[in-house]
Amino acid sequence: MDYNKKAIALHKKNRGKIEIKSKVKLKTIEDLSTAYTPGVAAVCMEIAKDKKKSWELTNRKNQIAVVCDGTAVLGLGDIGPEAGMPVMEGKSIIFKEFAGVDAMPLCINTKDTEEIIRFCKLIEPSFGGINLEDISAPRCFDILERLEKELSIPVFHDDQDGTAIVVLAALINACRVTGKVMKDLQVVINGGGAAGFAIARLLLAQDVKNIIILDSKGIIYSGREGMNEHKVNMAKKTNKQKLKGGLDIAMKNVDVFIGVSKGNLVNAEMIKSMNADPIVFAMANPVPEVMPDIAKKAGAAIVGTGRSDFANQINNALVFPGIFRGLLDSGVKKVTLAMKISAAIALAYTVKKPTSENILPKVTDKRAVTAIAKAIKK
Amino acid sequence: MDYNKKAIALHKKNRGKIEIKSKVKLKTIEDLSTAYTPGVAAVCMEIAKDKKKSWELTNRKNQIAVVCDGTAVLGLGDIGPEAGMPVMEGKSIIFKEFAGVDAMPLCINTKDTEEIIRFCKLIEPSFGGINLEDISAPRCFDILERLEKELSIPVFHDDQDGTAIVVLAALINACRVTGKVMKDLQVVINGGGAAGFAIARLLLAQDVKNIIILDSKGIIYSGREGMNEHKVNMAKKTNKQKLKGGLDIAMKNVDVFIGVSKGNLVNAEMIKSMNADPIVFAMANPVPEVMPDIAKKAGAAIVGTGRSDFANQINNALVFPGIFRGLLDSGVKKVTLAMKISAAIALAYTVKKPTSENILPKVTDKRAVTAIAKAIKK
Repeated sequence: MDYNKKAIALHKKNRGKIEIKSKVKLKTIEDLSTAYTPGVAAVCMEIAKDKKKSWELTNRKNQIAVVCDGTAVLGLGDIGPEAGMPVMEGKSIIFKEFAGVDAMPLCINTKDTEEIIRFCKLIEPSFGGINLEDISAPRCFDILERLEKELSIPVFHDDQDGTAIVVLAALINACRVTGKVMKDLQVVINGGGAAGFAIARLLLAQDVKNIIILDSKGIIYSGREGMNEHKVNMAKKTNKQKLKGGLDIAMKNVDVFIGVSKGNLVNAEMIKSMNADPIVFAMANPVPEVMPDIAKKAGAAIVGTGRSDFANQINNALVFPGIFRGLLDSGVKKVTLAMKISAAIALAYTVKKPTSENILPKVTDKRAVTAIAKAIKK
Repeated sequence: MDYNKKAIALHKKNRGKIEIKSKVKLKTIEDLSTAYTPGVAAVCMEIAKDKKKSWELTNRKNQIAVVCDGTAVLGLGDIGPEAGMPVMEGKSIIFKEFAGVDAMPLCINTKDTEEIIRFCKLIEPSFGGINLEDISAPRCFDILERLEKELSIPVFHDDQDGTAIVVLAALINACRVTGKVMKDLQVVINGGGAAGFAIARLLLAQDVKNIIILDSKGIIYSGREGMNEHKVNMAKKTNKQKLKGGLDIAMKNVDVFIGVSKGNLVNAEMIKSMNADPIVFAMANPVPEVMPDIAKKAGAAIVGTGRSDFANQINNALVFPGIFRGLLDSGVKKVTLAMKISAAIALAYTVKKPTSENILPKVTDKRAVTAIAKAIKK
């Protein structure tokens, strides 16, 4: 099916995907006097006396901002804030449909780290949480770290931890299917950005010792020139054999390929060079690093992509609605490492008997939200 | 009726008043593939190639931001961004109910003029217009002026021009009822803030020559010490007789009292000192400058307030929905003086036969929106 044409037609016909609605009736003068002036003044004064009342008397407890600067939208790169909006509206309606969360998409006109941080602090009084989205690395690492310290509401960068959680869940179930053991896995992560690094961090926390990460310049290794501080630090924890080179070299004799990069980078030869029963997660959007039929033909035991129209969709859409449902309901202020791991395990075990064609629940399966929200609340 | 208790109960029960909804179906994997990945990438790329497409393919053409810093909320003053939100949510649902406009309330954590300007520029790619709200004077004058120059989308400060337009409309019809002539009116405006100055400017543009403005220190006159530049300029255009003193002096022998200040400042004596058939617009919210029954008893020919629960509600809720409906539909980038006057006249003439108890349409009367939107489009 040509989703491109269909998508453009859908967006044109509806002029985007979101709208704002009233939760209260507003037909009569009495309705207006209660929802607006004069009655609303008493509500304002309640909050003026005690700011915490904003969680009870406005939509704040169910409302988050999806903040994006348009620099790393899907696999499309730096396409600008206007062009990022269709994805953010998409996130917004997924938040609402699957977790009942009201998410306002805010695509902003700056790439400056300090200005993005300041922006999030400015909007803090209006929201119960902030979902950072499609902000490119390495700025996104600094922005998240700073905001986790400086905001009083929870902040979550979906491209980092949302992706890492769904990948860990998929990997847990891929191990259940293939009989491989998590901590013994040899893993290649293609993508030195937000997602790649967050996946590596979560796998390291799970005792996976053999990880090789590649960025656009090839394998990351200690001592490689021109790396930013995040890459320098990551190089110390990965690639102990100090391998150098490209994907063809990295993928030899590994168990798992995780792609969070660009379309069509992996060929059949590379998959054939992997260990027995290779696990291939080709998650670039919209075009995966390798198409599932090619990977399967080359011997992949399990193939997942980021897309809804193939089996094994490994998309953070399985994660972010539940994360914020849990955060908002519990009043938790920070997503800890333990929460991320619990969320991944909870998500994996919503599938009772995973198979090679069914390692994760469908994105439309609301049990994912319930399981993850529960894990966060604990 | 005790609207205070009713309002608090309503807000608590519903946890505020707004929510975000999807305009498209999102039940099946196919829905997701069209509204989200992979299909959405094609929509993003359309906009990346031509930014103007954001007006066709996202909700931008129907979406505005209501930006507030919480410094001048209703007549309550500087109560902070959290406490301003119930009013902003109220605006949002009025926008939707009466004009079909999606308005996102953003209450922000700064009072700095430059930062508020910058904030509006940051969110520009996400919206079709910006409604500034409850930002105190004199900062609001500078913010509006700068944004009108520096933004590519229309900006409107409701407390200035929304209020001025509805007051001019009310005054047009008060003249039709009393037989007074607009340009000969002697007018007192109590309130040296956003609304007071915008009303004065619009009346001056209508050739009303005799205007006296008071701020919290009394009558504004040329040479008064310690005035900001806006007041100095306004003093040159008003109060030609250089009257000094308080409301009791200002209101003697005038035709019209316009209050955009605080509750309970005007007494019966002051109204009795006005010219025959005095017109009293006591618009402070939630408590008017004088209660309608007292003003009537003291001889007022026409009494209006800002509230929904008295006759003659003179509230900018009659104006802002139509203004933005017109701006968004027409693609007009700036609200000109001519548009404001046309809007006021159009609003006034939605009432075929104004009477002393019926000088404006009810806020729930959607003809107001249609008439004003039409005036903007012309």
